[in-house]
Amino acid sequence: MYIILVYDVDSDRVSKVCKYLRQHLTWVQNSVFEGEISTGRLARVKSDLRKLTQSDYDSVLIYQLESPKWLNKETIGIEKNEMSNLL
Amino acid sequence: MYIILVYDVDSDRVSKVCKYLRQHLTWVQNSVFEGEISTGRLARVKSDLRKLTQSDYDSVLIYQLESPKWLNKETIGIEKNEMSNLL
Repeated sequence: MYIILVYDVDSDRVSKVCKYLRQHLTWVQNSVFEGEISTGRLARVKSDLRKLTQSDYDSVLIYQLESPKWLNKETIGIEKNEMSNLL
Repeated sequence: MYIILVYDVDSDRVSKVCKYLRQHLTWVQNSVFEGEISTGRLARVKSDLRKLTQSDYDSVLIYQLESPKWLNKETIGIEKNEMSNLL
């Protein structure tokens, strides 16, 4: 399946969460990742995110689609993922 | 159509952008809005966002779907939209 993941976590945990997600998905913008992922791997990612975040403060939104073909994506302004190696 | 909109704009412009988007979409998390929107209204929103943001610095991602029925949404941690009136 294909997912869009957006996180809003405390600054103390941002770096760890971001570094972890880079191993599984593609960074597209500040706090936003995307990518194709298997059901099993997604389950692992969700489980790991529960450990890396604080459930009464942080929030991670995961939008799942069967395929990115249902999705039309557009950017206004700069494409920040060009800078992904810098962040 | 249904859209998910995620912005990453300079702190000087966040408040204005957020306030503007609240008139057209539903706030779901820090920097994330969602909602049903007509093609015409979306065109207006995009045009207004181009004026409200700085194209060489800010970035607004818009994911469009024909219907939210293709989308499965899940939250890890807190559902921040419960607090939307406070922000």
